[in-house]
This record gives sequence, C-alpha cells and structure tokens, in this order.
Amino acid sequence: MGTPICFGILGCADIARKFCRAVGLSPNAAVVAVGSRSIDKARRFIADNSLPEGTVAHGSYEAILDDPAVDAVYVPLPTSLRARWAISAAGKGKHVLLEKPTAISAAELDRILEACEANGVQIMDGTMWMHHPRTAKMREILSDPGRFGQVKRTNSIFCFNGGAEFLENDIRVKPDLDGLGALGDAGWYCIRSILWANNYELPQTAIAFPNPVKNDAGVVLSCDASLHWEDGRVATLSCSFLAHLTMDLTVVGSKGTIHLNDFIIPFEESTAGFRFGCESWFNDLVSAWEPRPREHAVSTVLPQEALMVAEFSRLVAAIKHSGAKPDGKWPAISRKTQVVMDAVKASIDNGSQPVQIVF
Amino acid sequence: MGTPICFGILGCADIARKFCRAVGLSPNAAVVAVGSRSIDKARRFIADNSLPEGTVAHGSYEAILDDPAVDAVYVPLPTSLRARWAISAAGKGKHVLLEKPTAISAAELDRILEACEANGVQIMDGTMWMHHPRTAKMREILSDPGRFGQVKRTNSIFCFNGGAEFLENDIRVKPDLDGLGALGDAGWYCIRSILWANNYELPQTAIAFPNPVKNDAGVVLSCDASLHWEDGRVATLSCSFLAHLTMDLTVVGSKGTIHLNDFIIPFEESTAGFRFGCESWFNDLVSAWEPRPREHAVSTVLPQEALMVAEFSRLVAAIKHSGAKPDGKWPAISRKTQVVMDAVKASIDNGSQPVQIVF
Repeated sequence: MGTPICFGILGCADIARKFCRAVGLSPNAAVVAVGSRSIDKARRFIADNSLPEGTVAHGSYEAILDDPAVDAVYVPLPTSLRARWAISAAGKGKHVLLEKPTAISAAELDRILEACEANGVQIMDGTMWMHHPRTAKMREILSDPGRFGQVKRTNSIFCFNGGAEFLENDIRVKPDLDGLGALGDAGWYCIRSILWANNYELPQTAIAFPNPVKNDAGVVLSCDASLHWEDGRVATLSCSFLAHLTMDLTVVGSKGTIHLNDFIIPFEESTAGFRFGCESWFNDLVSAWEPRPREHAVSTVLPQEALMVAEFSRLVAAIKHSGAKPDGKWPAISRKTQVVMDAVKASIDNGSQPVQIVF
Repeated sequence: MGTPICFGILGCADIARKFCRAVGLSPNAAVVAVGSRSIDKARRFIADNSLPEGTVAHGSYEAILDDPAVDAVYVPLPTSLRARWAISAAGKGKHVLLEKPTAISAAELDRILEACEANGVQIMDGTMWMHHPRTAKMREILSDPGRFGQVKRTNSIFCFNGGAEFLENDIRVKPDLDGLGALGDAGWYCIRSILWANNYELPQTAIAFPNPVKNDAGVVLSCDASLHWEDGRVATLSCSFLAHLTMDLTVVGSKGTIHLNDFIIPFEESTAGFRFGCESWFNDLVSAWEPRPREHAVSTVLPQEALMVAEFSRLVAAIKHSGAKPDGKWPAISRKTQVVMDAVKASIDNGSQPVQIVF
C-alpha cells in the first residue's frame, strides 16, 4: 500500500481509543500525533493506547494542524467545536475525518464542506457501519428489483440508556457542547440508515412526534419523527438516551424485507448478520410461513472502523500521490443527513408541524 | 375434558378452514354444523374439511342459530356483517368467537358486547397469537421490572403484498364489506400488540401519518400512525396491503428489548422464537455488544389457533356446566383495540390531526 497516511488526532475523546486501534489494524494508515489542550493528557493517551514510539504529543489542537508530518486529522471533539477545527484543518491542507454529527446544522456543515473543497482535501464523516461488508451485501439486495422490489417503509431505532451519570454530566447532554442531544448523537445514525435504504433520495417532509423529552437545558434526550417521500414512502426514526440499547433497521419493500438489530455496531466484530425474507407467504392453512426469512452472515477480516480508516486513507493517498480529486460521495451524504436532521429539529421546535426538506 | 363444546360456523370463509383444523386439534371442541347462504356450499365445505359424519349443513346463518346442538358460533363473515350475526347469535344464547376486526367501530362493538352480556354468553375475538405460549413467556419478561424496566417504545408492523387480484376483488378492499381495509385487517393486530405490550393501558392520543394510501372507493390500503401516552410512552403502527409480508413487534424498555418478526403467525407451528436483550452494553472499545441479546424458543404442542379454541371452549364449558360467568377480560381487550382503531381512523379522516382516545 506504499507509505501510510499519517493521522493527527484532535483531542483525547473516548472514541479516539477505538480510532487508534482501527488505524493500527488498517494497512494504509498511522497515527503520528495526538493533540490535547493538555500535553500531559496527550502523552498519557499515547502511552495508554500503545501508539508507536515517535508519536508526537502536542499541547494544542493548532500544533497538530501545523505539524508537517500530519496528512489528515481525526476530529472527535464535541459537536460545537467541529466546524471551527475542521475548517482550520482544511485551511492547513489537512484531510478531515470528522465524527458525527458533523455539525450543529447543515449551514454550519456547508462552511466545513466549502473549506474542504476550496483546499482540495477529502472529508468523510465517522459513520463506521457504512464500511462494513454487511452494508454492501444488503445494498445488493435492496438494489435488486427482482428480490426486493421498491422500498415502501423504513424503520430505524437507536436507543441506549445512558443512566444517571451520563444524563447529568456527558458532553452529549450539554447545550453548549452537543446541542442536538440524542437527535445528533443517536438520530444521526437513524437518519443515515433511512437515507441509505432509500438510495439517498431525500424525503419531502419531516414530522417530529409531539412532546420529545428534553432536559432542563432544553437538550433533546429522546425523540421520534416520521419522514415522508412524494411517492408515498414512509420512514420512522426513534432515538433516545432513556431506553435500553436497541439498534434496529427494518426495510420493507414490495417483494422483500430486511431486518437487523445491530446496524450501528454489530453484535460481534468478525461476523455480522441480517435477516432477509423474499416473497414470503403462508402454508395452505395460514399457520406458518413459506418460505421463512433467511439469516445471512457476513464475515469481515477487519472491523468496520478499520475499514473506514482504510477507505478514507485510500482516498487521501490517491489525492496525495496520484493527483486524484476528493471523492464527493462522502460529503454529499453527510450533507443530506444533516439536512434531514435540521428538518426534524425544526419540527421539534415548531411543535410537530411538518417541515419541508430543502436541499 | 367431558363433552366437547359444539360449534356452528357462520359462512365458509377461507379462514374457517384453519378454524376447522384447530377445532379438530382442540381436546374440548367439535364442529357440529356449518351454515352458508347456499346449502351446497356448506356441504362441500364439510366434505373438503373432512368434518365428522353427522356435521349438519345449513342453508342459512339463521338455521345455525336455531340449531339446539350448537353451543357456540364462529363468525368469520365480512366485518360489516359481524354485528348483525353476533348480536343474533347472542340473542339465541350462543357463545361467540368473533373474527377480527370485531366491528366497524367501537360503538358497533358495544352493541355486540351488550347483547352478549345481556344473554350471559362468552365472547372472544379471533386474535390467535394471544394464545401462543410464546406470548405468555414474553409477558413474564415484560412484567419483570428487574429485567425489562418500564416500556418506553413499541413498534408494530403488519404488511403483506396482496397483489393485483387481491386489490381488485378481495372482501377486505370493499367499502361495504370491510370498510376499515388494511387498518381493520392488519392494523388490528398492530394495535392489539401495542396494547398488550403496554399492559392494556390506553394511549391518550392517536395521530395518523399524512397521506395514507386508499383505493378508488376510499378504503385504506396502507397507513401508519403513532400512539402517545400521558407519561411519554410512544408506539408506532404500520399496516399495509402493499408491502412484503412483515410482522414485527419491538418493545423497548428502560432495561430490556424484545424483538420478534412473526408475532401474528409464527414462522413455524411447533416452535416460535423471540429475541430478548437485557442490560446490553458494549465491550471496552465499543466494537461489539456485551451481552448480546439471546434467542428464546418456545415450543407448543398445539398451534395457537387450537389453543384459542381450547381456551374459548373451556370458558364456555364453565358457563354451561358450572354456572360460571363469562370472562370479562376478552371483551375488554377487544373493546380497547377497537377504541384505538376508531381514533386512528378518525385521525386519518381529519387529515392527521391528533385524536384523543376516550374509553
């Protein structure tokens, strides 16, 4: 694979530990620098994560952006800080792997995307499940009119029960750090999965369910919404910090149905499953299914987060070594996700009135 | 079990074939008469279903109600005819096993229930999955605050793709026969499952999604709705004649999640499964679940429809032989189901405005 793409990490967020392992597993990437507002914290992170000797600790995020050894940055900072640092990184010619939600709004993401485009750097959001081979396998089925027909109904749920400590102190419930709350942190995945299932065709309208749960600071802890396409397709999303860990994606087509209960993080790393039923009906007395849906298992050599790092690094290497242009697919789907999230948020804020989705 | 309870069947609907087999498997029931508007059709039905010698064919529904050998009637007639014949049957002292939806509206069902009460006869609706031992097993889990916590979110889908012939000719798309369309035929199960999961506590509000699909006669072919409880619980239902066979029930609690994909008719007769996750979380690097949800399998000696017939017959026998009163549980949950259905229908008809649920 030639020289690896060299990453600098902005901040020592918990998720950055997972990223470090992913880079270690990826054949074309390396972590070369870690930046924190505290250089001691950066040093400790390097030690704790057994990063290679020579990995540089920086005492500021700026220092990472000025480090000539860094090709690309991974930005797991709180949502409110992402735009500032992603834009700065792009301005310094660094490629950007940006955690999700990519921004507080589509307008803010647009500023990030403009900076990346102006500087010819790749941007990709950190939606890891997109890179699992299971996702590609399901896409094959969804794209096959003979097996799946047309998508009719998509349902996506991502809940987890954060618990008292989380609900009190986590970044994701603080209005100044992650103002989108459960909609940003969990709903991002639901919206992305719905767009993915619907071939990234944007719905026309979003309608939030009444009475989402918010904390005293007004941050959403739990909400639901429906999305509506012009041709009658419907989707629902449900995201919450208050209910047991659940990660459902259900896609019902005219001829087939796909189910999975672990779409964001597979139950186990090496193999991930889904169920697919195709032209199922009943036996003569309608007391059993014929045929019953089948379980499919898709194994992967690398975990999905390593596949994400490898794909991002491949795109960066093509730009760096072969003069390729940044791949526009990734920013386009980040933007669509953020646009739908804006509409859901607007519907929450306007008391569950339908909000037109404008791209 | 003593003398079996003797059933008369009103009409030779396709579903009555399943009922005949269920009675044959049930230890305490027998079919003694079949009534049709055509006596030849009744005779043919008796022969086709290998009913015992001596089973009487009647050329009218009235004749069944006047047959002194008949203890109870099974009423699989089109929805529009159910009230008339259920009320007549009750008036003749016959117990009533009534197909679902039990009526066109709660007001109509109330007339049926009043007739049953006035005549001291048992009524039960034909929601077969209620009687599967899997349902009892899941109830144990749902009722356990230590394993499940409190219900937060329920999602229920029942779709099937009727196809062109069904959409043209089936009783269930005819306004004069089954005016509730997919809401009555498929949505009944969704609403029942949602009420079941929420311990039959009625939601406060129903909101239909905009733009349900209707046929030219105005019968609903596909619709969705959300249900809202005062304490913040939410449920969604999705029912359709236009999408691939899907039967999902998902119940998310604060501590656990139950999933099944065949809640109405199990994939196979002898064993039915569900998945239950309890206090699931992630491994250290958030790359897999710990513990992952477990598959549960519940076997049954008799199919659920035979268990339904056996339970109904047991209640009837207790009334007939031991002077017991009719069991009020069954009509109560039929009525709640119909009341919620009324609210969803009202919200469909008023352009997706929220409708208060009044019991």
